[in-house]
Amino acid sequence: MITDPFDTGPTGVFRTLCRIYPDDTVFRGADGFRSLWGPIFYRGRANGTARLLVIGQDPAQTEAFTRRILSGQAGRRVQGFVEKLGFTKSYLMVNAFLYGIYHQGMALPHLNDPGIQAYRDRWLRAALAPGRIEAVVTFGTPAFHAWQAFTQSPEGAGVDVFQQRALHPTADKEGGPITRQDLLDNWNVALGRLHAQIRDPDEQRPLVPYGDDFTRAELPEIPSRDLPMGLQPWMRSTDFWATLASPPGTERANISVEVP
Amino acid sequence: MITDPFDTGPTGVFRTLCRIYPDDTVFRGADGFRSLWGPIFYRGRANGTARLLVIGQDPAQTEAFTRRILSGQAGRRVQGFVEKLGFTKSYLMVNAFLYGIYHQGMALPHLNDPGIQAYRDRWLRAALAPGRIEAVVTFGTPAFHAWQAFTQSPEGAGVDVFQQRALHPTADKEGGPITRQDLLDNWNVALGRLHAQIRDPDEQRPLVPYGDDFTRAELPEIPSRDLPMGLQPWMRSTDFWATLASPPGTERANISVEVP
Repeated sequence: MITDPFDTGPTGVFRTLCRIYPDDTVFRGADGFRSLWGPIFYRGRANGTARLLVIGQDPAQTEAFTRRILSGQAGRRVQGFVEKLGFTKSYLMVNAFLYGIYHQGMALPHLNDPGIQAYRDRWLRAALAPGRIEAVVTFGTPAFHAWQAFTQSPEGAGVDVFQQRALHPTADKEGGPITRQDLLDNWNVALGRLHAQIRDPDEQRPLVPYGDDFTRAELPEIPSRDLPMGLQPWMRSTDFWATLASPPGTERANISVEVP
Repeated sequence: MITDPFDTGPTGVFRTLCRIYPDDTVFRGADGFRSLWGPIFYRGRANGTARLLVIGQDPAQTEAFTRRILSGQAGRRVQGFVEKLGFTKSYLMVNAFLYGIYHQGMALPHLNDPGIQAYRDRWLRAALAPGRIEAVVTFGTPAFHAWQAFTQSPEGAGVDVFQQRALHPTADKEGGPITRQDLLDNWNVALGRLHAQIRDPDEQRPLVPYGDDFTRAELPEIPSRDLPMGLQPWMRSTDFWATLASPPGTERANISVEVP
């Protein structure tokens, strides 16, 4: 028998945010968004019990299948990050963008379009409302700017919670300006600052920084409790099983799921 | 804004059945099952409010994406069937097999393997326990035999509820012995018998039988309230957007999702 816990879903205001959300007149194809996969709302505890708030960027094809954000390669890196802080379950992850992006240059300027920001801010306010969030970590520049926009808005006025920015989890693109070591150095700085702020993690752990590459243990599987019922272990513990089918560079990209 | 309701998930004993379930030592690849997509548990009301119980056969690739049974071509035909009876939401659909089948000749003989039947019978018992089910409809021979096995088991002893069998929703295979008209004639008989038994549908409607083919209205979309949050209208209102990628004839079949 399989006896894994699964995510039983959002409750309260979080449930409402998953039922009433902006459509493709807000996240327009012409603006670089891939609304056809639908919105992917969160990963983690959308029920008011989260003590760590994670903000990412946008969902990709793996997440279109799992229907939870940060569950592909970037997600497993982030999972290792939050577990280093002792958070094994009491986190909530949301993205700066509700829908996937197929063209960053077109989409990123829309980060704070009124309809995009207003909806995102409702998530951030809902996350903070129970008063349990001890720290916020933003991964990537759009996530950081989303947080800034929130704190400068009427919704976020008076918010007093520690925020730490970190590089996007896959900022170390092949041939790009940021190396794996750059990424991990940046994450180590972020971890140190966060660790000093956190009072009540799920498990008290000494902070162990990254070395020069992710170890196997630093890429843990996505917890079954974060995904819908019935998703299988290979979907949580391997990467790249969902890929874009050709032509990938369009709003309507198809998805190919390869069972390992 | 999109404001569609979604399935907020199983509750109570149904939730437990979605957390604790047989694995691939019960639904074995060598026996013709495709356990790698994971189990697909139900569609409809897994919360004790169902008044119509539908039993189908096994999930296919569309359902591996939507994570709800009977949401592809067969599912839309069944949806039209239950709506003819006035059921727009108060139904629960479960399958004879928790996992997909890739080889019927290998898998069907395992219908009543102890581990397969015991788990299925827990679902049937849970569905009947609130005492609200007015009728059971089985689609296809394995579903009918599953129901028979339940009523002949200690779990199902004393169950007194009207049951009607009907042909499998896609029994009219090209070149096969059953024509579209045969299927619809069979369904009209089943509908007539069920309609006479049902006291409390969601909507009282005169029974309108099928003609010589499914009309557009007889292939309604899968209600958004039956699917997880965020799934898009095209996933509910079109067929064949998920297909088996090659090689399809194996336990590990890949899935190709084509966005219309």
